[in-house]
Amino acid sequence: MRLGTIRHDGRTVAVRDEGEAVVLLDAPDVGTLLATDDWAERAATHDGPRLPAAGLTFDAPVPQPGAVFCVGLNYRTHIEESGEQVPAYPTLFGKLARTLIGPHDDIQLPAGEDRLVDWEAELVVVVGRAVRHADPATAAAAIAGFTVGNDISVRDYQRRTSQWLQGKCFEATTPVGPWLRTVDETGPAPDLAISCAVDGDVKQASRTSDLLFGPAELVGYLSRIVTLRPGDLIFTGTPGGVGQSRTPAEFLHAGSIVETTIEGIGSLRNTCVPAA
Amino acid sequence: MRLGTIRHDGRTVAVRDEGEAVVLLDAPDVGTLLATDDWAERAATHDGPRLPAAGLTFDAPVPQPGAVFCVGLNYRTHIEESGEQVPAYPTLFGKLARTLIGPHDDIQLPAGEDRLVDWEAELVVVVGRAVRHADPATAAAAIAGFTVGNDISVRDYQRRTSQWLQGKCFEATTPVGPWLRTVDETGPAPDLAISCAVDGDVKQASRTSDLLFGPAELVGYLSRIVTLRPGDLIFTGTPGGVGQSRTPAEFLHAGSIVETTIEGIGSLRNTCVPAA
Repeated sequence: MRLGTIRHDGRTVAVRDEGEAVVLLDAPDVGTLLATDDWAERAATHDGPRLPAAGLTFDAPVPQPGAVFCVGLNYRTHIEESGEQVPAYPTLFGKLARTLIGPHDDIQLPAGEDRLVDWEAELVVVVGRAVRHADPATAAAAIAGFTVGNDISVRDYQRRTSQWLQGKCFEATTPVGPWLRTVDETGPAPDLAISCAVDGDVKQASRTSDLLFGPAELVGYLSRIVTLRPGDLIFTGTPGGVGQSRTPAEFLHAGSIVETTIEGIGSLRNTCVPAA
Repeated sequence: MRLGTIRHDGRTVAVRDEGEAVVLLDAPDVGTLLATDDWAERAATHDGPRLPAAGLTFDAPVPQPGAVFCVGLNYRTHIEESGEQVPAYPTLFGKLARTLIGPHDDIQLPAGEDRLVDWEAELVVVVGRAVRHADPATAAAAIAGFTVGNDISVRDYQRRTSQWLQGKCFEATTPVGPWLRTVDETGPAPDLAISCAVDGDVKQASRTSDLLFGPAELVGYLSRIVTLRPGDLIFTGTPGGVGQSRTPAEFLHAGSIVETTIEGIGSLRNTCVPAA
């Protein structure tokens, strides 16, 4: 099952994918839906009004997650291109929920002088139930499913200090969506093609099975630190091929079109525009 | 004026300090109050029921901030003890809102083997209005006031990777409060004594005027990255005297009592307990 959040009649509403149509669910967004214990059954069986799939406008599936975790250096190819050692622990950093945008919204380039704006295609775990100190089976069962994200990064800010946060939370820079594909269809450790293309040129192409720390392992690790809650997002890291590691380095500019795709889950398509 | 959030009759309510008593305001917490344009006038003039100050139970003033920013290496004394250079930019990292606890709540030590849990007394900026691309005057005017925080840090997790987040967001480790003191009384760059004592022994003692990047400068810097919103918190950094930099190193254990005080704003008093 694929679930999304659309913008409709001046509000948002959660929907279920039915191919040529979507079914409107009785929740304002997928995050709100996930906060109910029986969300999977409700989402699968609810018989609401339908809308044709063509022409819908999507928001991020969970527009206001309570937490957005990110993992750095988690694909072997990206670890190699960054000149780093294979890590013993996941490198975790945070992102602000308010930086998220919908899967077809414009990416706002930072204002002022030309910044070094880069792409990072990512498989995103969506948490489906509250979990703390989870063993591997409980951690896997806490995954609602997966969506597609791009952790657009402002490299010059990211490198200003030892901590990456300031390059990772610029306004309106993090597209997510359009679909949450549920874990019963993907399994907790999916092996899917992941790619990022800029202006039609494929820059990243890998498989999600190349992840060093897999989805359930990340849920378990984080749950030993803090309670994970329904709707929390975990950006699992990006494969090799980011702009700053290319020769010569490449970055995004006004008009650049970024397409981020994970097989069987969905695609983001975002245009870079100067900040409002 | 000092504002706080108390736990009362199974809910929370914002209050104004009147010395021997508090006045109950018409908002469930200070964060909700700050989201209204005329909060300062409402808070100053509202004439609600009173409760005696003795015996109140406080929550964090803003129990659910939309964002919690932290600044590392921002007191000259702490930069020196860490062996770091004076930085050109603020070192920013994030914290989860869900790690916050009230000013007298227990600090939960991480479960399992003995962890290296340390103290970091901090002046905390509370944002009072939405602000983006703020010039210095606008940034100063966006500060609602200041509260007291302790960025309790799990050093072994913090040092596991290059990114500090995982040592900074353990469940129930971040006391904040009890009072938000409004900026009209402190000014935007207060010069106040700040201290942290463990079991009655003063470990940190400095003045908030030793901050390298001051409150308004931090608001302005962050606002060029992302919109700040009412209720957002900025932990401005800690002075010298943290446990890991002492000889020999010292850490917190079950039963340790941590007292964190900023002159004229208030005091935290928290007991360390093993995680539930």
